[in-house]
Amino acid sequence: MKKLVHGGDIYRNKNVIDFSSNCNPFGPPEGVKQAIRDAAEKIGEYPDVMCTELRETLAEKLCVPGEMIFFGNGAAEVIFSIAFALKPEKALLPAPTFAEYEQALAAVGCEIEHYMTYEKDSFGIREDMMSFLTEDIDVIFICNPNNPTGTVTDKDMLMKIADRCMENDITLVIDECFLDFAYEGQSMSMMNELANNGKLVILKAFTKLYAMAGVRLGYCVSSDTDLLERMNDAVQPWNVSTIAQLAGAAALKEDEYAERTCMEIKKERLWLADALKDEGLKVLDSEGNYLFFTGSDDLYDKLMEKGIMIRDCSNYRGLYRGCYRAAVKLHEDNVKLIEALRSI
Amino acid sequence: MKKLVHGGDIYRNKNVIDFSSNCNPFGPPEGVKQAIRDAAEKIGEYPDVMCTELRETLAEKLCVPGEMIFFGNGAAEVIFSIAFALKPEKALLPAPTFAEYEQALAAVGCEIEHYMTYEKDSFGIREDMMSFLTEDIDVIFICNPNNPTGTVTDKDMLMKIADRCMENDITLVIDECFLDFAYEGQSMSMMNELANNGKLVILKAFTKLYAMAGVRLGYCVSSDTDLLERMNDAVQPWNVSTIAQLAGAAALKEDEYAERTCMEIKKERLWLADALKDEGLKVLDSEGNYLFFTGSDDLYDKLMEKGIMIRDCSNYRGLYRGCYRAAVKLHEDNVKLIEALRSI
Repeated sequence: MKKLVHGGDIYRNKNVIDFSSNCNPFGPPEGVKQAIRDAAEKIGEYPDVMCTELRETLAEKLCVPGEMIFFGNGAAEVIFSIAFALKPEKALLPAPTFAEYEQALAAVGCEIEHYMTYEKDSFGIREDMMSFLTEDIDVIFICNPNNPTGTVTDKDMLMKIADRCMENDITLVIDECFLDFAYEGQSMSMMNELANNGKLVILKAFTKLYAMAGVRLGYCVSSDTDLLERMNDAVQPWNVSTIAQLAGAAALKEDEYAERTCMEIKKERLWLADALKDEGLKVLDSEGNYLFFTGSDDLYDKLMEKGIMIRDCSNYRGLYRGCYRAAVKLHEDNVKLIEALRSI
Repeated sequence: MKKLVHGGDIYRNKNVIDFSSNCNPFGPPEGVKQAIRDAAEKIGEYPDVMCTELRETLAEKLCVPGEMIFFGNGAAEVIFSIAFALKPEKALLPAPTFAEYEQALAAVGCEIEHYMTYEKDSFGIREDMMSFLTEDIDVIFICNPNNPTGTVTDKDMLMKIADRCMENDITLVIDECFLDFAYEGQSMSMMNELANNGKLVILKAFTKLYAMAGVRLGYCVSSDTDLLERMNDAVQPWNVSTIAQLAGAAALKEDEYAERTCMEIKKERLWLADALKDEGLKVLDSEGNYLFFTGSDDLYDKLMEKGIMIRDCSNYRGLYRGCYRAAVKLHEDNVKLIEALRSI
């Protein structure tokens, strides 16, 4: 069943250390938790369909007009809403990448052309991408840093892709959900290009940075207000719960938490990458809060026996048995992963 | 903008007594609020995509297999998911009724035939409905009790409609979201027919009965598991938040609250209907927690001046200026509505 192919399923895998999902290992900020506790008194009324407070706070932070933001019940709902609004006939999807783009496009019967990336290039997008961005393509999704590989598409390349998309009337969705964990993420973001490019959509989540995956809150930003309007038509008016709106507004106050996360993740990512390499695994460079590596086919099962769950990536298009992703967690957990590997 | 045409918009109408939305006037049960406060500690992980605990609890209560239940981010998401899964070419919709059926069908480009109901029949469905249920119809939505009129379609009529839908391969969605407020709702429900009729889908919400509109939790039940599977394909895997799952499971323990609600609502509905009639308004019989009435065109504005917001129903298809809906609230609030009317 489709619902069970993702990582993070701690409900059917109890008592494991979960390296398979990619939330902030510091856990939700206290301010977010308090906002949820307080929200218990406000659930009797319907949510604000306009997400007014959250919208104003985020718009100010991003320096964009509030009308350029569409909020969803998690970034995943935003992806489905883009698909339902665009009803694209043909999409270009890099592979391997996050599975929900394909799921959402399949739900509207969209033909999908896959742009394969290869291990020898660290799964990076190459110059030849331009020749795939033809007039018959309606939409492309680029995950940056890519999930599950952690690979970054550099900004020069993204600018070229964005220009080509403008020329050929292709909606370019850049998923920056994991860019919050990149040490110099701001400089890699295409957020500043939104005003110049009416085909660009940037996807973001509260889920990962603020460790609030259980709340569900994501959004996209675009100057294509016609698209955003059609997305509004494709979802119910009350798609973002009162709790998510209040939790999100509280999260946006957590600048110090976000900065500390970035610094700690960078440090731990480097430590964990080196330690994984020391165990004989082939580890890709990553800017996310996770690492992609290859090893023996039975690594997932053997780690599960030790009470550690990593993400088996063999069901990603373009990957194969022996491909894995592990979250960068707190140091003590990362040590346990390495110790378990050593004991196998 | 579509998002702003509904009732319950307390965010752009501050400091009013809100009779425009239809939640349980007793407010959320303490058990539900406590579940939300406790959930603050559990938001760091992704929600259970299978809603296991909630599903098992609800399945037991409804005496149906858990596989027959589809959960949504509010009943409104369930409606959109039905539309996206069925991709119907033609639908039959009674009018006036809840606007989201039409919104959801419009989002998939479905042609809509309207079955008009009339004030002289208390907006009831008539025998001639059968002749509209032709082979070219793919889906029909019946809201029972109907929103905004409160009208009940009796079970004999529903059984005939259900049989005809089976014959002509029409998906019959019966929205029983407000049936929890009917005094003998159990006997009016089509829930027992699910096993016999593979075209029947029953829609329910936690929103209204448990006053948790700000949480978002609804579901449908059907023996058409192929449809449910396609609905799963049309939404993200994590559509029901951890908070909603925990709040929902807590709500299902609140049998006493539900019974008390039913009794109190009946008493207050009768009192309020009589009092509205005494003020010269024409009031329909209702089995919901709201009353539909007609009066002078300026009633909405005049009541707003007095700090009371009712639902102006003139934007419902088949209704006209001077049509209103008011929630049945606690006695002290209902008295304020009547006093305000008297002072106008």
